[in-house]
Amino acid sequence: MRKPIGVFDSGIGGLTVAKEIMNILPNEDIVYFGDTARVPYGNKSKETIKKFSLQISRFLETKDVKAIVIACNTASAFALQAVRENFNIPIIGVISPGARAAVSATRNNKIGIIGTEGTVSSGAYSKEITSIKEGTEIFSTPCPLFVPIAEEGWSEKKVSYMIAEEYLENMKTLGVDTLVMGCTHYPLLNKVVQDVMGDKVKLINPAKETALELLDRLTEMDLKNDEDVKGEYKYYVSDNSSKFIEVGERFLNREIDNILEIDIEKY
Amino acid sequence: MRKPIGVFDSGIGGLTVAKEIMNILPNEDIVYFGDTARVPYGNKSKETIKKFSLQISRFLETKDVKAIVIACNTASAFALQAVRENFNIPIIGVISPGARAAVSATRNNKIGIIGTEGTVSSGAYSKEITSIKEGTEIFSTPCPLFVPIAEEGWSEKKVSYMIAEEYLENMKTLGVDTLVMGCTHYPLLNKVVQDVMGDKVKLINPAKETALELLDRLTEMDLKNDEDVKGEYKYYVSDNSSKFIEVGERFLNREIDNILEIDIEKY
Repeated sequence: MRKPIGVFDSGIGGLTVAKEIMNILPNEDIVYFGDTARVPYGNKSKETIKKFSLQISRFLETKDVKAIVIACNTASAFALQAVRENFNIPIIGVISPGARAAVSATRNNKIGIIGTEGTVSSGAYSKEITSIKEGTEIFSTPCPLFVPIAEEGWSEKKVSYMIAEEYLENMKTLGVDTLVMGCTHYPLLNKVVQDVMGDKVKLINPAKETALELLDRLTEMDLKNDEDVKGEYKYYVSDNSSKFIEVGERFLNREIDNILEIDIEKY
Repeated sequence: MRKPIGVFDSGIGGLTVAKEIMNILPNEDIVYFGDTARVPYGNKSKETIKKFSLQISRFLETKDVKAIVIACNTASAFALQAVRENFNIPIIGVISPGARAAVSATRNNKIGIIGTEGTVSSGAYSKEITSIKEGTEIFSTPCPLFVPIAEEGWSEKKVSYMIAEEYLENMKTLGVDTLVMGCTHYPLLNKVVQDVMGDKVKLINPAKETALELLDRLTEMDLKNDEDVKGEYKYYVSDNSSKFIEVGERFLNREIDNILEIDIEKY
């Protein structure tokens, strides 16, 4: 079936998820929405994130999407259920694919989670991991400075190492062997985090796992596009698009040429 | 006249301005609004900030305010004129009081401005300073990590010094003798900034200057409250108030006990 897949995030971070979908499902069309007027979501409440996520899903519905991917950890943690209850199409979040990958990667049953304050305080990863495998030891810590460092392009600077050491010290002491990068911006800091944690620790990027879960769900429900075409990509944002385009093209490694600004508060 | 003064900001930062108003005008009532659902403003576009500022001013109008203080540098830079055009009461921003204080403080006519990306790229401080005193040399630089550092409470940590060195290096080389702390969060980093710039550089905090300008305007227009009472303070936010209360009480050095969450998108 040729209908687009809706993908949304608080801003540009979810493009790391869109990129994996483009790789794994190259003939699917994508409608991406980045909530740049209200970014970030990580320090806002559950009720606010639910409201924003429902507004965005109503907007994506007007684009006749056949599935929605919530490409934001905080929104997946707070709003996945509410969106599922209100829309009768497959809704995929990033938490459960990331949790499954972490459980399958760990050898010593000690898993670390890093993310925004919202994602960490929601306990969503812990609940999901425990429901897959009881008895797993889970340690989680919010890293609020990681997003602005990634957006500043400071990932290789010495201060970023100091900040990562500050945030990850306990994680190292506790001896986790698997660390979930539970925020879509964090893959940009992969090198710093890997260097600080040491090369024996496996970093999990939920983006790829999410794209694979989407593939499964579309196959299962017979919703895949069987036409032999290249997927088309449309981008929508709630605030001005120049920074989105500049940083987004770096995230996607691809040109962003079809982008529109909309008033999300109307939905 | 006993009517409240409306004060607004993207979040908690503007409380540093509210605090100065409470000191200078102790018998005035204040209605404070913090846009915690859409914070921060510093990386958003002029059009979006104008729209948010007009929504908030319409909300404050329902509280029958006799004047509005835009206690946010980015909103003052982008929306002061639009709010003035739409509301027939005194509207005070933080830029022009801060600019005047900087001009009066400088001895070598070299003034530095630090603030958010929005405030700096607007050029609002430069225009204002140049209009007061032509020929002043102005250097400005955005410091996007200062807000999250202040909110993390990391102001005394070594990383904060490294980040400040990174941002302020050019400022020091250029030899400014006066530095405008052009973001309401920055006074929390006063010590770091003063240490990095050296004690010969005068730091300007526009909050106090803004409160003094408000006093002038209320006196001039015969709007001051002449009753011998203690002012009452009401706080409104657009997202959950627990963090606002926790951090806000630290900013204000006073209890926040009268706070309500509202849906700002309805205004």
